[in-house]
Amino acid sequence: MDDMIGFGGDRESMLRAAKTVRAEVRAGRWKDRTTGMARGMVQGNLVVLPKEHAEDFRVFCERNPKPCPLIGMTEPGDPSVPALGDDIDLRTDLSCYRVFENGVETSEEHDISHLWQEDSVGFVLGCSYSFEEALMQDGLTMRHIENGTKVYVYKTSVACEPSGPFQGPLIVSMRPFTPPDAIRAIEITSRFPDVHGAPVHFGEPSMIGIDDINELYSGPEPDIRAHEVPVFWACGVTPQAVLEEAKLPFAITHKPGHMLVTDKLNAEFSTT
Amino acid sequence: MDDMIGFGGDRESMLRAAKTVRAEVRAGRWKDRTTGMARGMVQGNLVVLPKEHAEDFRVFCERNPKPCPLIGMTEPGDPSVPALGDDIDLRTDLSCYRVFENGVETSEEHDISHLWQEDSVGFVLGCSYSFEEALMQDGLTMRHIENGTKVYVYKTSVACEPSGPFQGPLIVSMRPFTPPDAIRAIEITSRFPDVHGAPVHFGEPSMIGIDDINELYSGPEPDIRAHEVPVFWACGVTPQAVLEEAKLPFAITHKPGHMLVTDKLNAEFSTT
Repeated sequence: MDDMIGFGGDRESMLRAAKTVRAEVRAGRWKDRTTGMARGMVQGNLVVLPKEHAEDFRVFCERNPKPCPLIGMTEPGDPSVPALGDDIDLRTDLSCYRVFENGVETSEEHDISHLWQEDSVGFVLGCSYSFEEALMQDGLTMRHIENGTKVYVYKTSVACEPSGPFQGPLIVSMRPFTPPDAIRAIEITSRFPDVHGAPVHFGEPSMIGIDDINELYSGPEPDIRAHEVPVFWACGVTPQAVLEEAKLPFAITHKPGHMLVTDKLNAEFSTT
Repeated sequence: MDDMIGFGGDRESMLRAAKTVRAEVRAGRWKDRTTGMARGMVQGNLVVLPKEHAEDFRVFCERNPKPCPLIGMTEPGDPSVPALGDDIDLRTDLSCYRVFENGVETSEEHDISHLWQEDSVGFVLGCSYSFEEALMQDGLTMRHIENGTKVYVYKTSVACEPSGPFQGPLIVSMRPFTPPDAIRAIEITSRFPDVHGAPVHFGEPSMIGIDDINELYSGPEPDIRAHEVPVFWACGVTPQAVLEEAKLPFAITHKPGHMLVTDKLNAEFSTT
């Protein structure tokens, strides 16, 4: 498994780890989460839609770049995304997929070759793993990682800009920090506009419609300590929730934690 | 006076305004503040010291880059700073200087040619005008500008890293913002490390030793409104206070608001 993690250092070994992860997943030998795999490489969320909804969804991403940072998109029927890796095949390269019919999950799959249609369009969205890695490299400790839990996720009262059938509230992830660490976290994440970018809010949660910080959309009871403020980032759960709400006849997404590992370096996604 | 303001647009007209300001100041025709002059151009704080203290002060700046961002330094006895403008003469190009003897201000001057010594060393430090301009360009409103007052300035309990005779507390300027505006302000100012950079703190003032937000070092009663948090930046007053405290036999600084207008564009100071 070590060769799937890649221990950073040079670009070549990181790239090799990414290709190894995809090869293992494609061969059906790795069906687990990709968290912590191919360190240094960008991982992406996946959405697959029929062509008739693709343009509306693309515009939805364009209008809501913080929760939906679109980093790659396929041609209809073509499962490759050369911009993110020359051998990527979206039908086989994610370790677990969720299939939705009319907004309801009907199955989990490890391979969607049999479900991929001539008019299927794949969207790859940036995810917070990239900026979390940059925060850790700066020496910042994230509570959910320290505690070994999932991140704290909340539904806000902030509406996304709608597009066609796609609409719904912004969903955010929360990480508590002291003010000086929050400032560093804002500085760092603002350099990663393609993976959610800077936070959308900090402090008083009621200002974004979170009336009770203990009422989460998902995640454990929040552990916020003295002198810490909650800092909220736009979250990749937003498009998933919007998609479920749109109740399309047919859609496929990645299963949370089971991402597409790309050949892009996180460092390439930094604007500085 | 319009030709001293420069209404932005192209680099050439901004540069022309900078040169006009310096020429007017040098000729003794402009003795007032340079706030709002030569828009788009970097303005700098000045410190002039005898050579024997210059190295200690240079190291002090190096150790405390947020309050003391050194952007230019002269050779002993040479009042030019070619890096900031090919015709700059620190003896004549600031509209008002303060002269200190043993840490006490003894006079204000509009020209220090008669006080400049063979061993005088000039230091030019970045100032917050540059980042305030960037904040305004982004559409952020600063309360002290909106209210037409000076900025809110506080003494903190955070000690600067000392160097030789130079030591003292960090002094900060405060600007109140709502959290989303504070996030934007952090994003923007973090791109200007040479003009104080990102804030040092926000929120609870007692965490940096400000026990009463109404107890200022200088400036008017703070006007902080509902849902706003105070955001604190390292302030150029810090080196002035440190210098007074060091009680050197002889030193010269600019008078606050009467800055050196340079030929550098604020945009050149942005790291992105």
